[in-house]
Amino acid sequence: MSFIEVNHNKAYYEVHGEGETSLVILNGIMMSSASWQPFMGMLSKQFKVVLLDFYDQGKSEYLETTYTQDLQVELVKELLTALDLKQVTLMGISYGGEVAMKFAVKYQQMLSKLVLANTTAYTNQQLKAIGDSWIYSAKTYDGKQFFKATIPPIYSSEFYESRVAWLDAREKLFDKVFDEKWYEGFIRLVISAETHDVRDQINVINIPTLIIGADEDIITPLSCQEQIHQEIKNSRFVVIKHCGHASMYEKPIEFFSTVMGFVTVGHEHFVI
Amino acid sequence: MSFIEVNHNKAYYEVHGEGETSLVILNGIMMSSASWQPFMGMLSKQFKVVLLDFYDQGKSEYLETTYTQDLQVELVKELLTALDLKQVTLMGISYGGEVAMKFAVKYQQMLSKLVLANTTAYTNQQLKAIGDSWIYSAKTYDGKQFFKATIPPIYSSEFYESRVAWLDAREKLFDKVFDEKWYEGFIRLVISAETHDVRDQINVINIPTLIIGADEDIITPLSCQEQIHQEIKNSRFVVIKHCGHASMYEKPIEFFSTVMGFVTVGHEHFVI
Amino acid sequence: MSFIEVNHNKAYYEVHGEGETSLVILNGIMMSSASWQPFMGMLSKQFKVVLLDFYDQGKSEYLETTYTQDLQVELVKELLTALDLKQVTLMGISYGGEVAMKFAVKYQQMLSKLVLANTTAYTNQQLKAIGDSWIYSAKTYDGKQFFKATIPPIYSSEFYESRVAWLDAREKLFDKVFDEKWYEGFIRLVISAETHDVRDQINVINIPTLIIGADEDIITPLSCQEQIHQEIKNSRFVVIKHCGHASMYEKPIEFFSTVMGFVTVGHEHFVI
Amino acid sequence: MSFIEVNHNKAYYEVHGEGETSLVILNGIMMSSASWQPFMGMLSKQFKVVLLDFYDQGKSEYLETTYTQDLQVELVKELLTALDLKQVTLMGISYGGEVAMKFAVKYQQMLSKLVLANTTAYTNQQLKAIGDSWIYSAKTYDGKQFFKATIPPIYSSEFYESRVAWLDAREKLFDKVFDEKWYEGFIRLVISAETHDVRDQINVINIPTLIIGADEDIITPLSCQEQIHQEIKNSRFVVIKHCGHASMYEKPIEFFSTVMGFVTVGHEHFVI
Repeated sequence: MSFIEVNHNKAYYEVHGEGETSLVILNGIMMSSASWQPFMGMLSKQFKVVLLDFYDQGKSEYLETTYTQDLQVELVKELLTALDLKQVTLMGISYGGEVAMKFAVKYQQMLSKLVLANTTAYTNQQLKAIGDSWIYSAKTYDGKQFFKATIPPIYSSEFYESRVAWLDAREKLFDKVFDEKWYEGFIRLVISAETHDVRDQINVINIPTLIIGADEDIITPLSCQEQIHQEIKNSRFVVIKHCGHASMYEKPIEFFSTVMGFVTVGHEHFVI
Repeated sequence: MSFIEVNHNKAYYEVHGEGETSLVILNGIMMSSASWQPFMGMLSKQFKVVLLDFYDQGKSEYLETTYTQDLQVELVKELLTALDLKQVTLMGISYGGEVAMKFAVKYQQMLSKLVLANTTAYTNQQLKAIGDSWIYSAKTYDGKQFFKATIPPIYSSEFYESRVAWLDAREKLFDKVFDEKWYEGFIRLVISAETHDVRDQINVINIPTLIIGADEDIITPLSCQEQIHQEIKNSRFVVIKHCGHASMYEKPIEFFSTVMGFVTVGHEHFVI
Repeated sequence: MSFIEVNHNKAYYEVHGEGETSLVILNGIMMSSASWQPFMGMLSKQFKVVLLDFYDQGKSEYLETTYTQDLQVELVKELLTALDLKQVTLMGISYGGEVAMKFAVKYQQMLSKLVLANTTAYTNQQLKAIGDSWIYSAKTYDGKQFFKATIPPIYSSEFYESRVAWLDAREKLFDKVFDEKWYEGFIRLVISAETHDVRDQINVINIPTLIIGADEDIITPLSCQEQIHQEIKNSRFVVIKHCGHASMYEKPIEFFSTVMGFVTVGHEHFVI
Repeated sequence: MSFIEVNHNKAYYEVHGEGETSLVILNGIMMSSASWQPFMGMLSKQFKVVLLDFYDQGKSEYLETTYTQDLQVELVKELLTALDLKQVTLMGISYGGEVAMKFAVKYQQMLSKLVLANTTAYTNQQLKAIGDSWIYSAKTYDGKQFFKATIPPIYSSEFYESRVAWLDAREKLFDKVFDEKWYEGFIRLVISAETHDVRDQINVINIPTLIIGADEDIITPLSCQEQIHQEIKNSRFVVIKHCGHASMYEKPIEFFSTVMGFVTVGHEHFVI
């Protein structure tokens, strides 16, 4: 169990593998380092993988007051410094992608590449309303209510159609695992993303950047990734088909093929 | 105040205009005949328009037990018979489109044309899960909770971005207007749609059919309308851009242009 | 046979119907007033329809030197003035849409509504290259060559799949009907569109505007219509599904439903 | 210079790199082994890469009579056998993807993975018409004519907009490099693809398969890859954005990231 302490607040992280290339992964809002375990065998063969639980997430500390994503940005920076990691590939999905963009705007000299999956440069009014509905249901501390308010739009219709039993089991799980402290942490995480808006800032990013979207993502639809693509010069944009917001869960082969290939591939200018 | 009584249950309807062509409109699940009032001036100049509140909707009677959409189909049939309307254009949006398809499968000889907007031939597992979440929140009898659980995914992001004040007012309105009886009626309506599946039946429909989809509809996405289009021979399929599920509210000009033109246009075979 | 003479050059036009509302239609580059005849019965019941052959098109005069689309704009203006038509709906498809936009930028006080189908605000490099290939093949004066160079990408794959015999007949027809003068006229028309670029001008248009796109249009893809939609405030944007560039030929019901509804519909501000 | 001889016809191939994993690449119709040279440095670090010129392509022999793609399938089989390659990843783009599908239907035991880029299971009527237009222009033996007939729809509009000078140079190059023998070979290649239809056969493929599409591919649009995806069970489908038919030229980073990741990634069943 490894922790890093910033301003007296402890955050949990894991390091897997011995590869020369470091891949630092930032979670979506309802995820934790545990969410990536199924893929660690595969990833750690090739990379040194760093997983991190944001504050109010997984095994990291619950905070007592609200904050913005800048706090998570500083946490990432302290972790990379503490581990003496330079020129890492930083990958973030959803909330993690938002933090990754903010990190790249401020500290891109620490990065060699950036991967942004199912994320957005701006918490628009609709996403804010969705966040509000998540907060409202979290305040009931009722896992069933929370599941119903958050999960149905997360996945693609194909996934829902084929995974009904898994989703039912998941609903029962929600009812058991989350306690009041978790819900309160979740609410603070949602609030920390409400003011997210880096639309006018990400044009400074000039490291190789891969943008992954999913055609049935309705939390951060393709128009959100297109906006990022327009702002970040020379960014690469691929779309996973028949896939919802939790792309790395729904289509892990497609997701990790693209990510692992992107981290590995040279970025010389091809003269064709 | 006009009512029709079927099996001792009263349903409310309105007739507007004197046109030779009749347009019968079936509501979405959260709508009522009142929802169409802003457009009655325009529509009644050209058509005889019939509005109907389904059972458990608007001014129609609340029922006491659950039922399937077949009950609503029979209600429509009784109404057309009572008004002695023949060869009408039947238009349904969302839930109303589901009933309209079932009606056309059974009684297409009563119709001259069919318009299906933002609807689906099948309540898939994801839509069922969304319905479950609506039921769950309706059971709280809490307007704010209900609003947050149902409204954010209904509209397009553009609409949300530009209509924040209107949406806030709407949220306050929800909190006032709905009572326990309404919520219980709403729950029965949702349940009546849970078993909806006419995928194997609609291929019998062979009257001129217009299908309207919206590119940001995430309740019944374009793939749902494509499926209907593939099944109904010679059906016409148009898409309103930058528009969510409640297309006639978000983009009334686009919506009614297409509908009014389709009702008016001849359907001779054009020799080009 | 009606002609209007501008600067000693005669252009052919037709007037159909007696409706109070005037609909003036501008052709695509390979079309002529004859192309619209299959639809005149339907349209003339409701509207006074004006068809016009641009210079170098149909029964209008062949010119002797190259020109820009501005010449066609002035032709339209002279025709409307001569016919004493005020507040008309101007509809243009493809090349005709380009002229329609230029007309609206300069003379929108003469228009009540604008319909732009399968057109673009800008002849981009790819469209210019396509135009060059058309010119190159026109210079062979070989109908078969010309057909093969221009027609395959015009239609949707569905249309091609279902209309092979019609397309074969069409190829034979091309070989017979076009003479050297026609090809030279066609080349001048293509050249007149090469410098088309009203991207920075159409934001002055503030009459009700309908934009029609087709999802399989590869001459002026949806991104072209989206660009127009972003520039013309309050423009309405609908898409015909499974349809190529010649939308009014491939999907006449969808096309004319939308157009006729749009011309008819009121444009009051709906208070919803 | 390595050649393999099948039935007295010699075909050219190259082997690059020493990797344990073999990647065999099949060309598009206008390509040759030379087309992949810019990427060999990158690919050969990780894989043993085999390039092959089909008959009538590059340095391979020109044939004297027409044939079907089955001939190319047998050529690939003889090459793999001669090189004693087992369990290779076979990747084909466009025409090469068509041959790759036919190969996989017949000899999938020789493959470990399959990559299909910008290809189709069926030469539909439109694609056949496009092929006819290519043949017609090839018969002129005029490089400029040929360029204009084939190239403009190959690339995305973004590529065309940004690479005008390169495209102009390319047009001049075409005029010099191709001789009558090349054009006749090209015509035979087009004819060999005219009868391509494996729609009912590819459902036997059950090796890990990656399908790459491009959103602006108008030669083999996304609907073609979707069709392949529906037929090949568990196939993976990703789309490169703002990209035309020659995806590996337009977006090499996106293309090779996805391919290299897919070849590397494990295909265990992830238990999430």
